[in-house]
Amino acid sequence: MSLLVIGSLALDTIETPFGKAERTLGGSATFISTSASYFTTPVRLVGIVGYDFPKEEIEFLKSKKIDISGLEISETKKTFHWHGKYDFDLNTRESLVTELNAFETFDPVISEKFKDSEYVCLGNLHPSLQKKVISQISKPKLVMCDTMNFWIEGAYNELLEILKHVNLLVINDSEARELTKEFNLVIAARKIMSLGPKILIIKKGEHGALLFTNDSIFSAPAYPLEEVFDPTGAGDTFAGGLMGWIAKTKDLSTDNLKLAVIYGSTMASLAVEKFSLDGIRNLTNDTIMKRFSEFKKLTFFKEQTL
Amino acid sequence: MSLLVIGSLALDTIETPFGKAERTLGGSATFISTSASYFTTPVRLVGIVGYDFPKEEIEFLKSKKIDISGLEISETKKTFHWHGKYDFDLNTRESLVTELNAFETFDPVISEKFKDSEYVCLGNLHPSLQKKVISQISKPKLVMCDTMNFWIEGAYNELLEILKHVNLLVINDSEARELTKEFNLVIAARKIMSLGPKILIIKKGEHGALLFTNDSIFSAPAYPLEEVFDPTGAGDTFAGGLMGWIAKTKDLSTDNLKLAVIYGSTMASLAVEKFSLDGIRNLTNDTIMKRFSEFKKLTFFKEQTL
Repeated sequence: MSLLVIGSLALDTIETPFGKAERTLGGSATFISTSASYFTTPVRLVGIVGYDFPKEEIEFLKSKKIDISGLEISETKKTFHWHGKYDFDLNTRESLVTELNAFETFDPVISEKFKDSEYVCLGNLHPSLQKKVISQISKPKLVMCDTMNFWIEGAYNELLEILKHVNLLVINDSEARELTKEFNLVIAARKIMSLGPKILIIKKGEHGALLFTNDSIFSAPAYPLEEVFDPTGAGDTFAGGLMGWIAKTKDLSTDNLKLAVIYGSTMASLAVEKFSLDGIRNLTNDTIMKRFSEFKKLTFFKEQTL
Repeated sequence: MSLLVIGSLALDTIETPFGKAERTLGGSATFISTSASYFTTPVRLVGIVGYDFPKEEIEFLKSKKIDISGLEISETKKTFHWHGKYDFDLNTRESLVTELNAFETFDPVISEKFKDSEYVCLGNLHPSLQKKVISQISKPKLVMCDTMNFWIEGAYNELLEILKHVNLLVINDSEARELTKEFNLVIAARKIMSLGPKILIIKKGEHGALLFTNDSIFSAPAYPLEEVFDPTGAGDTFAGGLMGWIAKTKDLSTDNLKLAVIYGSTMASLAVEKFSLDGIRNLTNDTIMKRFSEFKKLTFFKEQTL
């Protein structure tokens, strides 16, 4: 049940057509670990924040039974700060401010206690940092990795190197196309899987996600929401639900991976309904299962042959 | 079982990154009726072609048990001709030539024999022509209508008028957004359904389709193909499978509409694998059912609660 999550913790300022939230809790590791905490505890968090990181948010992470012994608190630097503004359709966003602060010198050292982690979530980081993390884990059963166009463009060779050690890559459709120079996602998927990951998930935003394994393709819908307030962290929340379910069940069969994708989608659909992390701060199992069952209604049909 | 299909019959020249087909069979009514013929016969076709329309294509339509008694053959004009060129990603296309020819003066008169049609497919035509057709059908059980951005922009009021008489509208996502000035598809859907259609299908191309009824939303995936050769007619093939299944089963329950959407998607996925109409010219029930079952594999998952 040992799930290790590494990534950024941030204080985000977010503007959407629906409002603005100032210096609110953000970062890939925050979303991943909070989302995963509904499936498996304690989630092991590795990251760095600054001296300005709110005490109550530390308490919040603890309340989710997240093990924060791997969370470094810088005494001299501030927390990573991102200020983004979303377009009217919420599909494109502009980064107005990116202040790395404490995150700039983040050097992930995995404690002895965490080295036996079985499931590893590498949040979006420079591939060389991701590699450094993997090399410290003694015997991972599954390494999941997220990345972004920034690394595809700026650290291509390092990304290819890390992919050799990754079992499950989560990437969005435009990144998959950029990485492979293939427009067709099925062909892009095959190319990516030849680089290392035996399991691949391509996220398509409002169009859901595709899961590729060696013997199948699974298509998960996105939940059709009338009001998406803030897409920030949706992908990380997805990854947290996905890996939380896998760590809980310890089952890497295709059938169970499909289920993990649905749980990831369930969590992401709950996250985007509110600003920042608010959509997944205080969920009950009932709320999660209710949304989960909506996913079933959304795609299941009664068979009848021609 | 009486399904009436009205729309264009054309000779298309199509260029895709994979090749070029010259003056090949096209048109909305052609794709709809051929696709529907696998589900219900005889499909009643109403349309117009020119003196140059190949005899063997007339024979082909007959071989599909399509009733072509409503097909007018102009002795003075040529067949509607469209020449389109697709972009490398097959998602955008440019119309190089559009010669209406015989289609320009198309004035659909429904014969006495066809007036009792129960299921009506209004292919993409000027809304005032679509209205003229409806007014001639005595007691339709379900009227399906397709439209396009051209009519949303150029015949908006006529389109609103026809929508009052339409039970099932099939429209693509960009058209739904343009028609309602709403980006969010769930909100756009509700607006469209307030204009008349009690059932709405929003097609999302490579991302599948959404079915909206008064009490549910259903999300059908697109079949993830490695090679899409020619997307021409995919939407019409979808509509043909959809309406063919509905006419065959005479069942307008939400459960059966979901199934109809899957059959429509099945047919569309077979159509785009080859140029022009070739993908659905000679299908067996086995081929259709094999693809249909792939759709089930694509979205079904085994449930397990948290």
